[in-house]
Amino acid sequence: MKINENYLKLQDSYLFSTIARKVASYTAAHPERTVIRLGIGDVTRPLCPAVVRALEEASREMGTPEGFHGYGPEQGYDFLREAVALYYSSHGVTLSADEIYISDGAKSDLGNILDLFDADNRVLIPDPVYPVYVDTNIMAGREIVFLDANASNGFLPMPDDAVQADLIYLCSPNNPTGAVYNHAQLKAWVDYALQTGAVILFDAAYECFVGDGLPHSIFEIEGARGCAIEFCSLSKTAGFTGTRCGYTVVPHELRCAGVSLGSLWLRRQTTKFNGVPYIVQRGAAAVFSPEGRREIEENLRYYRDNARIMADVLREMGVWFTGGAYSPYLWLRCPRGLSSWEYFDQLLEQANVVGTPGAGFGRNGEGYFRLTAFGERGATVEAMERIRKMG
Amino acid sequence: MKINENYLKLQDSYLFSTIARKVASYTAAHPERTVIRLGIGDVTRPLCPAVVRALEEASREMGTPEGFHGYGPEQGYDFLREAVALYYSSHGVTLSADEIYISDGAKSDLGNILDLFDADNRVLIPDPVYPVYVDTNIMAGREIVFLDANASNGFLPMPDDAVQADLIYLCSPNNPTGAVYNHAQLKAWVDYALQTGAVILFDAAYECFVGDGLPHSIFEIEGARGCAIEFCSLSKTAGFTGTRCGYTVVPHELRCAGVSLGSLWLRRQTTKFNGVPYIVQRGAAAVFSPEGRREIEENLRYYRDNARIMADVLREMGVWFTGGAYSPYLWLRCPRGLSSWEYFDQLLEQANVVGTPGAGFGRNGEGYFRLTAFGERGATVEAMERIRKMG
Repeated sequence: MKINENYLKLQDSYLFSTIARKVASYTAAHPERTVIRLGIGDVTRPLCPAVVRALEEASREMGTPEGFHGYGPEQGYDFLREAVALYYSSHGVTLSADEIYISDGAKSDLGNILDLFDADNRVLIPDPVYPVYVDTNIMAGREIVFLDANASNGFLPMPDDAVQADLIYLCSPNNPTGAVYNHAQLKAWVDYALQTGAVILFDAAYECFVGDGLPHSIFEIEGARGCAIEFCSLSKTAGFTGTRCGYTVVPHELRCAGVSLGSLWLRRQTTKFNGVPYIVQRGAAAVFSPEGRREIEENLRYYRDNARIMADVLREMGVWFTGGAYSPYLWLRCPRGLSSWEYFDQLLEQANVVGTPGAGFGRNGEGYFRLTAFGERGATVEAMERIRKMG
Repeated sequence: MKINENYLKLQDSYLFSTIARKVASYTAAHPERTVIRLGIGDVTRPLCPAVVRALEEASREMGTPEGFHGYGPEQGYDFLREAVALYYSSHGVTLSADEIYISDGAKSDLGNILDLFDADNRVLIPDPVYPVYVDTNIMAGREIVFLDANASNGFLPMPDDAVQADLIYLCSPNNPTGAVYNHAQLKAWVDYALQTGAVILFDAAYECFVGDGLPHSIFEIEGARGCAIEFCSLSKTAGFTGTRCGYTVVPHELRCAGVSLGSLWLRRQTTKFNGVPYIVQRGAAAVFSPEGRREIEENLRYYRDNARIMADVLREMGVWFTGGAYSPYLWLRCPRGLSSWEYFDQLLEQANVVGTPGAGFGRNGEGYFRLTAFGERGATVEAMERIRKMG
C-alpha cells in the first residue's frame, strides 16, 4: 500500500495557528488589554429571521411521516436550484436550473471539481491567493504557474499570452486583496481562455459585496458559458459559514473533446456526495425570498459600512490599499516598509488589533496585511481608532 | 485542457433509472393497481422527537448573536465526536475523540478517502457490491480485483492468500446481501491485512441492525487499529438519509511508511471540506442522548420486525436467502431459475411489487434479488402476501 505522496509536498499551513499562538501568548501576558480580532474571514451577524423560520419549519416537517424527506437529488432540490437561477436573472444572467449544482460550500466544490481534470493539466493561480487553490492542486500533483498580483496591476493581474495553462483560477471580489475585476478585464480573461482552450474556475464567493455595475458573475461576460465554471456560496451572503450551502454553475456549452463537463460533475457528485441536508436547502431558499433578501441586505450593509469606516481611516492616514469598497477585505501596504509579520507584531502589541499577515497568502503578499470588515461595529471603530493613533 | 479520462471508463448506471422507467410504464398502463416499492434503500420513518427538538433549538440559536456559530472545526465539534466515542464504548471499543471525523455521510467519505492513496494501489472489492466502491476507484484509474461472494460462501467471502491487494473493501452487515461477518471471520481479514500491509476500508453503515453479539465495528477485532478505517453513518441508524451526518474512524496507529493516515485525512478534510452544519451536528448529538437512543430504537425495531415478517414468508416458501436477521436487506435467489430482471418483471406485473435486481450489484448478483425492510408495515405485509401467492 502506498499513500498519495503528493500530500508530503504540501507545506504545513502555520498561518492561522501561528496567529492564534501569538495572540494567546500576548493576552496571557496582558490580561488587562482588550484585543480586537479583524483577522479571520468569518461572519459575526446571526442568521436572519426568515432563514431561521425556514430551518425550524423544515426541522418540524422532518419529524412527520408526510413531511419527512429521505435521500434527495445529489445536485439539490429544484426549489433551490430555481431560486438561484432567479437570483442570477436579477444580474441579467440567464441560467437553466439544471446548470446549477447545490453543494455544502464553495471550498468543497473548488477542491472536488479537480476530480474532473487530468493530473497533467497545468494550472494558473494568482499570487497572493486563497491557499485552497494551491493545496488542492499539489494534492493532485499538478504543475502550478503563479501569476503575479501586485501593486503595479492593482492586484488584478491580466492574461499573459506567453503563459500556457489549462485551468485558470480567478476570484473577484478577491480574497485576500478585495480587488474587483470590471467587465472589460473579465472579458479579456474570457477571450484568452476561449483562445487557448483553458477553463476558468471563477470563485464568486464574495459577489454579494459588488456594486456600481461591476460584474457579480463571470456569466455576465459574453463567451463565458464556453469556458468557465463559477463557484458561489451563501457563507458571506447570508452568514452560512456554519450552516453550509453553496452552488456551482457548469453551463451546458462547456465541453472538452465533446464531453460535457456538467455531465462529468453530475457523475462525480452522484457518486461521491449525497446532497445538502433538506433542512439547510429550505433555509437557503429563504435567503432568496423577498423577505430574506431584505433581511440579509441589512447584514451586508452593516459589513459594508464597517468596510467604509475602515477605508476612510486608511485613506486619511495615506495608507495604500485595495478592497473595502466592494469587498469585506482591506488589503493594505504595511507602513514604514515593515514586513507582514513585523506589522502583525506591532499591531498586536501597540494597538491590540489582530489582522492577517499578507505573506500567508503567497510570495507577493509579503509587505501587505489583510483586515476584515466582518467584526462588530463598536470593535471595528475602536480598532481603526487605535490603528490611526499608532500611525 | 484534458479531462480525467477515467470518467469515460465508467459504465452508465442504469439500475435505478431502468427500474423507475419500468415502474412508470407499468403504472401508466394499469392505473388501478397499487404498486408497492421495496426496492430503494431509503428509510421512511420520520426523524425522532429528540432530534427534531435539537434541530429546532440549534436553528433558533443560530438566529441570535450569542448563539450564532460560524466556521466550525472541519472534523466536527467535540460534543459530537465525544458522543460517538461514548457510543463505541458501549460495544467495548475504546476510541479517542480525535480519531473520529464527523462528515456529511459515509458515501462522501468512502469516495474522498481515496485521495489519500496512490493511484497505483490495487483494490479488492467483493462482488456483488455497493456500486460506489467500484466507481470511485475507476474514477481514479485504480486496478480492481473482484472477490466472489456467492451462495457457496454465504455471500461472505474470506481472504485468499493468492490474491494481492493494497485496499480491501468490506461491508458488514452487507449491502446488498444483508450477510454479516462474525468475529472469527473478521479476525481472519484483519490478520490477512496486517500480514500483507493492506488497509481495510470497513463500511459499517448498517451496524445498528446487528445483534446477538455479532461485531458492530471492525475495531472489536484485535489488530484492526493497525490496518482499518471504518465508515459509519446516521442514515439508517436515525433516518438521516436527508439530514446528512456520518463519521469515519482513523485510528492513531494506522500509518504507512511512517506517515499517519489520520493526519493525511485531517489535511484532506481541512482543505476540501468545511464541516457539517452546526444545526445538523446538534441533531446528530441528540441521536446519542438517552432519549434519542430510546426513540431511534423504536424505529429500528419497526424495520427489524418488517425484516422478520419478510424472512418468515421467504422461509415458508422455501426460498434461499441471506440477510433479514441483522440487516434491513433480504437477498433472495430468484425462483424457477429466473434471471434478476425476469423476476423483477414478473414481480412487478403479477404481484405489483418492486424490488432491486441483483444483477445491478455485479456479476455474482445475477439470479438474485434484493428486498428492503424500510417500507411501511401495512405495505410490507401486503407485498409479502402477494409474493407468497405468486409462489
